[in-house]
Amino acid sequence: MALIVQKYGGTSVGSIERIEQVAAKAIAARAAGDDLVLVVSAMSGETNRLVKLAHAVASDPDPREFDVLVSTGEQVTIALLSMALNRRGCPARSYTGSQVHILTDNAHTKARILGIDEARVRGDLEEGRVVVIAGFQGVDEQGNITTLGRGGSDTTAVAMAAALKADECQIYTDVDGVYTTDPRVEPDARRLDRITFEEMLEMASLGSKVLQIRAVEFAGKYNVPLRVLSSFEDGPGTLISYEDEEMEQPVISGIAFNRDEAQLLMRGVPDRPGVAYHILGPVGKANIEVDMIVQNVGADGTTDFTFTVHRNDYQKALEVLEATARELGAREVSGDNKIVKISLVGVGMRSHAGIASTMFEALANEAINIRMISTSEIKISVVVDEKYLELGVRSLHAAFQLDQAPVA
Amino acid sequence: MALIVQKYGGTSVGSIERIEQVAAKAIAARAAGDDLVLVVSAMSGETNRLVKLAHAVASDPDPREFDVLVSTGEQVTIALLSMALNRRGCPARSYTGSQVHILTDNAHTKARILGIDEARVRGDLEEGRVVVIAGFQGVDEQGNITTLGRGGSDTTAVAMAAALKADECQIYTDVDGVYTTDPRVEPDARRLDRITFEEMLEMASLGSKVLQIRAVEFAGKYNVPLRVLSSFEDGPGTLISYEDEEMEQPVISGIAFNRDEAQLLMRGVPDRPGVAYHILGPVGKANIEVDMIVQNVGADGTTDFTFTVHRNDYQKALEVLEATARELGAREVSGDNKIVKISLVGVGMRSHAGIASTMFEALANEAINIRMISTSEIKISVVVDEKYLELGVRSLHAAFQLDQAPVA
Repeated sequence: MALIVQKYGGTSVGSIERIEQVAAKAIAARAAGDDLVLVVSAMSGETNRLVKLAHAVASDPDPREFDVLVSTGEQVTIALLSMALNRRGCPARSYTGSQVHILTDNAHTKARILGIDEARVRGDLEEGRVVVIAGFQGVDEQGNITTLGRGGSDTTAVAMAAALKADECQIYTDVDGVYTTDPRVEPDARRLDRITFEEMLEMASLGSKVLQIRAVEFAGKYNVPLRVLSSFEDGPGTLISYEDEEMEQPVISGIAFNRDEAQLLMRGVPDRPGVAYHILGPVGKANIEVDMIVQNVGADGTTDFTFTVHRNDYQKALEVLEATARELGAREVSGDNKIVKISLVGVGMRSHAGIASTMFEALANEAINIRMISTSEIKISVVVDEKYLELGVRSLHAAFQLDQAPVA
Repeated sequence: MALIVQKYGGTSVGSIERIEQVAAKAIAARAAGDDLVLVVSAMSGETNRLVKLAHAVASDPDPREFDVLVSTGEQVTIALLSMALNRRGCPARSYTGSQVHILTDNAHTKARILGIDEARVRGDLEEGRVVVIAGFQGVDEQGNITTLGRGGSDTTAVAMAAALKADECQIYTDVDGVYTTDPRVEPDARRLDRITFEEMLEMASLGSKVLQIRAVEFAGKYNVPLRVLSSFEDGPGTLISYEDEEMEQPVISGIAFNRDEAQLLMRGVPDRPGVAYHILGPVGKANIEVDMIVQNVGADGTTDFTFTVHRNDYQKALEVLEATARELGAREVSGDNKIVKISLVGVGMRSHAGIASTMFEALANEAINIRMISTSEIKISVVVDEKYLELGVRSLHAAFQLDQAPVA
């Protein structure tokens, strides 16, 4: 008998019919002998309706009250799902974040979970109940209602699984797993049976929107096996866990990409210690998040400094940079917001040489010019012109044979 | 400086515009120097929407989960109202029933308030905040969300006023006060400036739906001055308080009536001790509430026993009674569900003789046959044919000159 935490997102509980389907699914899992904790989001559309109400009252609503408001969305779902389970003869009990003491800091609308008092949940499980928990919400030390920010229900599910030492945390969503890349770009993209936490983090942060980054981090930190599955069709989904000796280990797991990048470049910066700080300090102060950073040392005692930011921050970053360039006596500032980032992700990279050259060769074969390169232990990212995104992803997918399941 | 608890019902907070009006009203009261606690209901229509969702899932939804569901209605209102106040520069903070520890028993959907931890509210008031509290809901000792049943927001307001020893509890509603009788029946009905708790209880329980009976009882028990006012127009409303030496004291305050009555009659019951119990015991066991009871002793050693029930219970009561009549050897059982009750209410009755005869004379003048009479210290009720309701109410209203303000 296993203890499973299942999380159902807004689309999966988006109507009474779908809530009934979730109830049926849960009862089937119980019949198979598993203990179940269900974490649910607000019915799809409900959070938007509540946010609209808030904005009808105030353009910048009080954050504490905003959380009081939007947290009602999940509360409706937990009650309806528990009713559906009870009606079908399956004892169930619902809890809000506050009732099950999902303790968070007091950063309203984007709180972080500090702890969970799982004793009550465990008691219900022992008495044979299915426990239904409101995702996305918690309570601070003063008893104020908090929310974790959009997508926080994944984090709730993982935190609950960690607190209960659950055997698996299953995230039900509208896709049937994690793919080698976005199937809308590469129709030959293949569902992965397994992927490691580290790879998933790289995939998630680079634009595969299947799971919240924080949930994956949390799962990794507490070693909670995470599985992504479809609410609407049966299938094994994708298991996200730590690397495993016996695990078939492909060199490359997938290709992530990000369309929302913009590149900034400062040329001819007098090269002295502290240059990076001088350039990026004001950018950070302007609340602009920097992604890739590359610095090349030139021959004439100057250096070229390049970085990428979110496309929305491009204009602001450019202005900040121009001011800094005047101060530093840099030769030139330029930028481009029609670029994208493509990343090859795989823990197998660690032990395999030649990955980078295979990557660069594949891109060169298609005459795709690489504008920036950045590497980490398990990923290689390149910045290319926006127009090469699809071609680049497809040529890499083919070069690493990601359409074929790895040989055991 | 006074401490005022104001309660706004569903219609008063039925839209964003109306919530803004309540915020403006509250800010005006604060500007006048009062400390304010606002108790609010769900936006009108919202509770019905939630109940419909529940019934889409289960015809007889789990009561605990039902309370989790419907309590979100008020939670939405408290958040929106607090946002509106904060946006206008008036510091405000919202609390759910659970957050402010409105402790109730665990009778889900019709819980009773056991206590309130008012310390937190007092702290907010001291820091200059307006406190906004979700009506209608509480929490039991195990931390389960409970609701007080429809109209329970009035009770929340009174209980909060009692706990805080507030100077006044103001119930804002869609009428501008308590009237001598229903203006739809008697256009000359007059708004009362004052009425006593006891009178209000008789008026409320007899069909004047302005205030919840439990709220009036609570206010009387803890001596909380209660005022009924209109949300939509200015005016003094009606103050409900204890009788006061200096209070102008009309003999009769008002005329209540109840259309939902049915009368049952058992004739020729052998008159021996315990007859009333033998007749009413089975009625109570069938969960039928009995209102008026009259027993006349006959001359031949038998007695006639008459009582009234809610019209919905008429058929069931008749069946129960027929079975009992066979057991007791009673001569005849009959009934009538086309009857109504009209009641004259007034604390002045205690010290004034002749009220009953004036009443009976007025009805006789209109040839209205009285089928049953029942009296208490501050009320005289008669049962008459349904068709005489309007005529009876108007003739009594005129006979006691209720259209005219009493002379001080």
